[in-house]
Amino acid sequence: MSFVRTPDPTPGWLSDEELAVIRQRLPLLYVEAVPVRVDGMGQVTEVGLLLRVNPDGQISRTIVSGRVMYGESLRDALFRHLEKDLGPMAFPQLPASPTPFSVPEYFPPPTLGQYSDGRQHAVALAYVVPVTGTCDPRQDALELTWMTPEEAASPSVSAEMEGGRGALVRAALASVGRLP
Amino acid sequence: MSFVRTPDPTPGWLSDEELAVIRQRLPLLYVEAVPVRVDGMGQVTEVGLLLRVNPDGQISRTIVSGRVMYGESLRDALFRHLEKDLGPMAFPQLPASPTPFSVPEYFPPPTLGQYSDGRQHAVALAYVVPVTGTCDPRQDALELTWMTPEEAASPSVSAEMEGGRGALVRAALASVGRLP
Amino acid sequence: MSFVRTPDPTPGWLSDEELAVIRQRLPLLYVEAVPVRVDGMGQVTEVGLLLRVNPDGQISRTIVSGRVMYGESLRDALFRHLEKDLGPMAFPQLPASPTPFSVPEYFPPPTLGQYSDGRQHAVALAYVVPVTGTCDPRQDALELTWMTPEEAASPSVSAEMEGGRGALVRAALASVGRLP
Amino acid sequence: MSFVRTPDPTPGWLSDEELAVIRQRLPLLYVEAVPVRVDGMGQVTEVGLLLRVNPDGQISRTIVSGRVMYGESLRDALFRHLEKDLGPMAFPQLPASPTPFSVPEYFPPPTLGQYSDGRQHAVALAYVVPVTGTCDPRQDALELTWMTPEEAASPSVSAEMEGGRGALVRAALASVGRLP
Repeated sequence: MSFVRTPDPTPGWLSDEELAVIRQRLPLLYVEAVPVRVDGMGQVTEVGLLLRVNPDGQISRTIVSGRVMYGESLRDALFRHLEKDLGPMAFPQLPASPTPFSVPEYFPPPTLGQYSDGRQHAVALAYVVPVTGTCDPRQDALELTWMTPEEAASPSVSAEMEGGRGALVRAALASVGRLP
Repeated sequence: MSFVRTPDPTPGWLSDEELAVIRQRLPLLYVEAVPVRVDGMGQVTEVGLLLRVNPDGQISRTIVSGRVMYGESLRDALFRHLEKDLGPMAFPQLPASPTPFSVPEYFPPPTLGQYSDGRQHAVALAYVVPVTGTCDPRQDALELTWMTPEEAASPSVSAEMEGGRGALVRAALASVGRLP
Repeated sequence: MSFVRTPDPTPGWLSDEELAVIRQRLPLLYVEAVPVRVDGMGQVTEVGLLLRVNPDGQISRTIVSGRVMYGESLRDALFRHLEKDLGPMAFPQLPASPTPFSVPEYFPPPTLGQYSDGRQHAVALAYVVPVTGTCDPRQDALELTWMTPEEAASPSVSAEMEGGRGALVRAALASVGRLP
Repeated sequence: MSFVRTPDPTPGWLSDEELAVIRQRLPLLYVEAVPVRVDGMGQVTEVGLLLRVNPDGQISRTIVSGRVMYGESLRDALFRHLEKDLGPMAFPQLPASPTPFSVPEYFPPPTLGQYSDGRQHAVALAYVVPVTGTCDPRQDALELTWMTPEEAASPSVSAEMEGGRGALVRAALASVGRLP
């Protein structure tokens, strides 16, 4: 395996093999979003969690999450992953501020940290994003489930969250003053 | 002058005289908002500043600002003052997070601090608020002027801002990654 | 009862009677601090909660909390209450940033909000404050108890917190990346 | 050039050649710190900027900045680069909160953004870090210059900052309530 040094017509694109190698060498930069519904006063009323079937057939919950590509702004990456995970009619309201509410660090297990990712060391910039339209998750997510803040913060939902993201959902709720 | 202790049909209401006395005794709690326009990606493109004529005939610029009443939530106070200063068709998007980007402290002059208010000691919770509708300032504000971030942060506009709020507008721009 | 309008040798001072009246008329501004211990890398390792006996003899837990006086900066108020509640040898490290991690709103019950205060409507600016010295709570606080983040966030400790501040302690932990 | 897949005794280490290739393929994750002096009340009094000679002999100013390695926590990376750039006796007080005050995005020029880096696409988590000891910059930084907030925010100092970091220093000052 080797990198091609000729000019690249698709910058940011990496073969699966190249990415697999890099994942052992560098922390990868991610953006993550906790989709929420807000009322007319901006108060968060519901949290949207993605339900999906993992490659091993196990069902788990997660949030919107994806890699930032070479040359891509954080804002563009956030929008692209929101559209990919929630569909084109979700109409997310991207935050005016690019400062995340939290910066979760995912390490391969065994890890002493809160968050884990079996594939890689990843650092994510995490945002709370109100969506105003209709969500239509792509095929590998079975469903977007809307929950109250209380449900989303509960131990039973937390136990189903991938990579320890239950704590991240609670931190998201805390950042909007809605952690029970 | 004295306070009436009978049950109050209009809680939070204070006579001008009572308020004048309290202003010498306690810091008053304010909410303030920097109105902005955002593009489809949530990026701030313009800042709205109110142009007004002060009681002494001098023209000055300011932002949305007002007192929090007894029993009123911060969110309700913010919405009330946005509607009062920008009109009923401004359609402000109140932030999901109640945490302000800054907490300006206004002291009567002479003051060593950044912000001043001749009437009182006030502490404000300041927010950046995207507005999506049409702004129609009330009578005592002549005009809402939309400016680029560069204009809003300029020394000439700063010099026209009431109470030192030029620094607050720059801090607002910094909080959304748009300070030149 | 009436306010004295002559120059006040003790600005910010209010008689108990005056304060009692104002508490029915205006939201009062508070600062609050969650004392923490940090390790050499700045990571929060312990949370300090005050154990105290209420006037009715009931034991409860709380955090550092107190009113901002007329003419007093937030930073001075925070330092004054830290010294009052933790003693003169606590050596708190006040945050460089005056922006709070949360702005809890306390309303008299019955309230739909998270936080309550039987005496008044109060709005607090809440900070996480590392202390590096020895804490020696004043007489009406029996004890400062240091806990792990897990203990401090637990339902049993939350149930003992005054005014619903269990949620505030969890929000404090979330803000430093230590919410379980 | 190729990646070695055998277990790596120095994880996170990349040859210069490998790094050069990856820099054209992926955004790299950085941590950055604006060193400050604070007074006894936590208020920022001075900002420290590094003066250095670039490879082309040009003199420029910058802040503490460096890459996050594979398997390294943000906190460890921040501490490592502070020690590397300020020396072992600087005694930095790492923030309790891992949330940055800003997330500058550096793109290779030509760029429409605020920040640029000729070598790569980098995204940095930027922190304000009080230092309490004696700073002794390493060889390739000539000097650490302490300035008042007013000096650090001035156009003349900004013009000397690498990659547009003058705006970042102003955002740092805004985050601690010290932007003029």
